[in-house]
Amino acid sequence: MMKYTIGVDFGTLSCRALVVSAENGAALGMGECGYHVYDDTLPCGRKLPARAALADPLEYLEALSTAVRAAVKNAGINAQDVIALAIDATSMSVVPCDENGMPMRAQKKWADEPQAYIRLWKSYTATQEAERIKSAMAEKKPGFMAACGGYPSSEGMFPKLLETLRECPALYDETSAFTDLDEWLTWLLTGNLTRSAGSMGLKNYCPDGKTLPDAGFFAQLDERLANVHEKLRGEMLPWGACAGRLTPMMAERLGLPSGIAVGAGGLDGHTSMMALGLHESGDAMLTIGTSGVLAVISDEWHVVSGVCGQAYNGHLPGFYGYDFCQSGVGDMFGWFVDNCVPSRCEAQAKAEGKSVHQLLSERGFAQPVRADAPVAVDWWNGSRSVVVDQTLSGAISGLRLSTRPEEIYRALVEAAAFGTRLLVEHAQKHGVMVKRICVCGGIAGKNPLLVQCYANILGRELHVSSLPNSAAAGAAIGAAAASGMYATLEEAMAHMSSRHFTSYQPDMAVHEAYQPLYERYLKMRSFQAGR
Amino acid sequence: MMKYTIGVDFGTLSCRALVVSAENGAALGMGECGYHVYDDTLPCGRKLPARAALADPLEYLEALSTAVRAAVKNAGINAQDVIALAIDATSMSVVPCDENGMPMRAQKKWADEPQAYIRLWKSYTATQEAERIKSAMAEKKPGFMAACGGYPSSEGMFPKLLETLRECPALYDETSAFTDLDEWLTWLLTGNLTRSAGSMGLKNYCPDGKTLPDAGFFAQLDERLANVHEKLRGEMLPWGACAGRLTPMMAERLGLPSGIAVGAGGLDGHTSMMALGLHESGDAMLTIGTSGVLAVISDEWHVVSGVCGQAYNGHLPGFYGYDFCQSGVGDMFGWFVDNCVPSRCEAQAKAEGKSVHQLLSERGFAQPVRADAPVAVDWWNGSRSVVVDQTLSGAISGLRLSTRPEEIYRALVEAAAFGTRLLVEHAQKHGVMVKRICVCGGIAGKNPLLVQCYANILGRELHVSSLPNSAAAGAAIGAAAASGMYATLEEAMAHMSSRHFTSYQPDMAVHEAYQPLYERYLKMRSFQAGR
Repeated sequence: MMKYTIGVDFGTLSCRALVVSAENGAALGMGECGYHVYDDTLPCGRKLPARAALADPLEYLEALSTAVRAAVKNAGINAQDVIALAIDATSMSVVPCDENGMPMRAQKKWADEPQAYIRLWKSYTATQEAERIKSAMAEKKPGFMAACGGYPSSEGMFPKLLETLRECPALYDETSAFTDLDEWLTWLLTGNLTRSAGSMGLKNYCPDGKTLPDAGFFAQLDERLANVHEKLRGEMLPWGACAGRLTPMMAERLGLPSGIAVGAGGLDGHTSMMALGLHESGDAMLTIGTSGVLAVISDEWHVVSGVCGQAYNGHLPGFYGYDFCQSGVGDMFGWFVDNCVPSRCEAQAKAEGKSVHQLLSERGFAQPVRADAPVAVDWWNGSRSVVVDQTLSGAISGLRLSTRPEEIYRALVEAAAFGTRLLVEHAQKHGVMVKRICVCGGIAGKNPLLVQCYANILGRELHVSSLPNSAAAGAAIGAAAASGMYATLEEAMAHMSSRHFTSYQPDMAVHEAYQPLYERYLKMRSFQAGR
Repeated sequence: MMKYTIGVDFGTLSCRALVVSAENGAALGMGECGYHVYDDTLPCGRKLPARAALADPLEYLEALSTAVRAAVKNAGINAQDVIALAIDATSMSVVPCDENGMPMRAQKKWADEPQAYIRLWKSYTATQEAERIKSAMAEKKPGFMAACGGYPSSEGMFPKLLETLRECPALYDETSAFTDLDEWLTWLLTGNLTRSAGSMGLKNYCPDGKTLPDAGFFAQLDERLANVHEKLRGEMLPWGACAGRLTPMMAERLGLPSGIAVGAGGLDGHTSMMALGLHESGDAMLTIGTSGVLAVISDEWHVVSGVCGQAYNGHLPGFYGYDFCQSGVGDMFGWFVDNCVPSRCEAQAKAEGKSVHQLLSERGFAQPVRADAPVAVDWWNGSRSVVVDQTLSGAISGLRLSTRPEEIYRALVEAAAFGTRLLVEHAQKHGVMVKRICVCGGIAGKNPLLVQCYANILGRELHVSSLPNSAAAGAAIGAAAASGMYATLEEAMAHMSSRHFTSYQPDMAVHEAYQPLYERYLKMRSFQAGR
């Protein structure tokens, strides 16, 4: 009898459930269901503050069952052969729940309260709270600050708790537990409140992946946070751990067998590491997507300044995980194509049956590296690692009357790659060795010229995965480990990962030619950062 | 009986002849005739080096008579009532001539020799020669170097003479005199070889407006330049002086009376000062066109570092003239519209019946000044004043995912205005007071929002002239003075200038709001210049 597991990946705009073979990881069927992001008004008409981004947990619950049922149907399997499932989700998407794991938003009383909705990662309404935490960290230097490089993101749980205390203190009091999105869904599926080591560790200052940060520190910011450990209760579990068994009610809802294993949840940005089979100290996964993430696993603990997050068990059990982020990568290329490309390029791309991205890449990279070429700093969306300041902005130099759009586009790609080179150098300077880089993310698959540029600028071989739905595939591997079918997550990965990569070798002559441009990039960064 | 004078303005692409009333300067009729710029191959098929820009002097001669005859016809006057004419032309457009003032290019022997053509101001093929002169100046510090701020432009006469010695030494030997374009045409009209104080003074290191720079200095660069004073012989005349009388042959050719006065020639960028009636120490003319020029007249001599040119009689007789230049102004806006504006802006401009420039100006300037707005450095075409380095390039900072094309366009306009503010401050810091600024140039008339931005950034009232063909109108005033109808040029200007201006008052609150952006501009300039 064949066995199957399901990974469910909750993105910002939709969730995707993937049925895979528990024997070899083969993807058999996918189901998808979208949901809304509320950034202007709630359905009830309530106006939201600027930069808010909310979602409705009840809609997510509907999407979960719709996607899972569709995946099972599309896979053409018998649902009774599914032995486990696990959730990954956007991180720092906070859901306030009652003592049964039901979202507070489900209560009539809180139905129109923005703070009772899912406050998505990109809801930037707690910036003043993040600043307060940052100042307090700078003053008191708590040990746990290492886990965020001393620069708390306003996306995180603690700034959002302070925001709830500012905006709706009664909701804070009545909420039994504040959860991250994957934790809430896993709670509902199992009836057990557990936490994910990735979410708590890398994003919420738990460097050991199991201990919450000192409540006294937060009580000094706001005395009502003295009970914050109660609000964030629950054991932190790494990927591959079993969070519990599927409840009869949820089994019926999803059309799956009751009592099957539910794997620990985690961050959507990290599950791909399982799908790609990263398993050695020094392995890194570089995501080239809307934003960029360099996630490194290591046997060693080193405190790294300007890290985005670092924690034991943060990525894979038994490893220290380090996250370095670039706030705008694909976003920046998209901005350029939407705002800075003349109609003749659009017409030419259409005539050649290409995207504008492809046309500009081909034209831009057709030329050799020129020392006097335009150079950009990739801070269109601020800077999240090394220099941590979301108010910083991007820049382009080397502009001349002869400069053409494809040269600027190329400069933006190079800036993103220079930024990644700096992340790798920064990690290594702090003792976190990067030995092998696997690349995933939508852009990498679509634009080989861009990946070659990254390889040339990094001066390293890049291993590019073409696995679709790698996040959901990773979660399905975690589910298989949780089911007990494999003794360890590592064993599950050995059977189920897709370790097929396209290799991009660096051209070291081009790498050398880039050196003066990289130095200009570094100088421009310092200038832009006012340092 | 009415009397008339004619000004003939030789631009890069066409010449325009204007008939005006000698009594009141009223424009009565215009004639125009275009000619070619050869920047790739000569008509004979000879390939030109990169960045060359040549023109055919014989074609210019045809254009002169065509334009003058058309102007007289369009004015509906009797050609016998014309009492004088004068030429202005692009400066640093070098014409090698025989002893009769005929271009060497007219000889069969030199008909296909690029060095025998008019090497236009924008023929950038003598850059290595300019570097050699610059180094020699830095070493020997000749007194005349003050006239160019120590930074000789590759557009100038001396680099181009060295270029001829490099490329075609026999032509140098056989050439009787090398002339600037206005000087050659005035020579042909009169049979007398005279020079213009503006061309020689401001562009060719003759700070007193009458004495050629030391030949020994140039002979040390190349011994064949020992005879350079012979090759550049001829008295330097200011505007309003009489260069001679129209020869019977040229009178027949132009259809004008033989023996009428021919006024001294001069630079096209400066004749407008006569047309606008600038006449007091501290008066300045700001040209906002393809490039930008701030021309200041003063009673005082101050050596100004990083000036583009300074000379007695350089602009108007009896004044010290100072030229400060911005290499790219309208060029930079044009580059943006051609290369960086998405089709939706083009479509919107079309729907509203506006130019893209107008649409972007209206949208850009509809917003208040923001301290975090994009800031640019206006060096798309290098830098010609204060910092003198044509290899420098432009830059934009403050770019975010939310940045829209109109914000960048506005930043480019502001950068041009910041650049002008720096020129004014630089001049005054060196003792050259700028008391009143009159504005001319095509862009100023077309874009009131841009002029208001300049006024706000400068914190000064700007007097904008809407006089069309002001260069030719100025030359016609110089011709009237040369005819003896008026005792002095000043008197001719008092009768014939158009002193009607539109006044733009600065909004000093906006001026203050711009201060942090101006400071960012200055810092970015220093960074871009590597200082």
